[in-house]
Amino acid sequence: MIRHTVVFALRHAHGSLQEKAFLRDAATTLADIPGVQKFEVLRQVSKKNDYRFGFSMEFADQKAYDGYDRHPRHVDFVQDRWNREVDRFLEIDYEPA
Amino acid sequence: MIRHTVVFALRHAHGSLQEKAFLRDAATTLADIPGVQKFEVLRQVSKKNDYRFGFSMEFADQKAYDGYDRHPRHVDFVQDRWNREVDRFLEIDYEPA
Repeated sequence: MIRHTVVFALRHAHGSLQEKAFLRDAATTLADIPGVQKFEVLRQVSKKNDYRFGFSMEFADQKAYDGYDRHPRHVDFVQDRWNREVDRFLEIDYEPA
Repeated sequence: MIRHTVVFALRHAHGSLQEKAFLRDAATTLADIPGVQKFEVLRQVSKKNDYRFGFSMEFADQKAYDGYDRHPRHVDFVQDRWNREVDRFLEIDYEPA
């Protein structure tokens, strides 16, 4: 199992319609790409960093992760939405120790 | 639900006995503090950051999280082990969006 997470902040005002639309569209677009399990849209609530949201998803193995990464719906979402609407982010991926 | 995560790198050599001991002792010490659910010891595997490990745990609510935070076993672990053996870290906490 690989858990892929990304913590991020948007360029949109907090609480804006654009913010809601981004989170909703990400879930709609990405959650049912083949291989994606346990897709979660999360609020980042620690005051010890300045990110606002997170996505978390799990893949059975690296092959499933790679399939997601190059899936046209993911590639297009990164190009058309992520790169334009996200201000800063950090990707963190986990496997059981 | 609050998911508390911390991603980190140790001062110990990778693959060392000290590294193994730290991960084992953290799990032994922290996982059964009251309120802690789903405690996980994780390897960080993305090449897009330079952290090596992670812990993840869940709490039912902020009260349970606060109880963990001030529990003597957690306080002692931070002082005696974490502050001495961890080189760098980032705390990220999530709630469902």
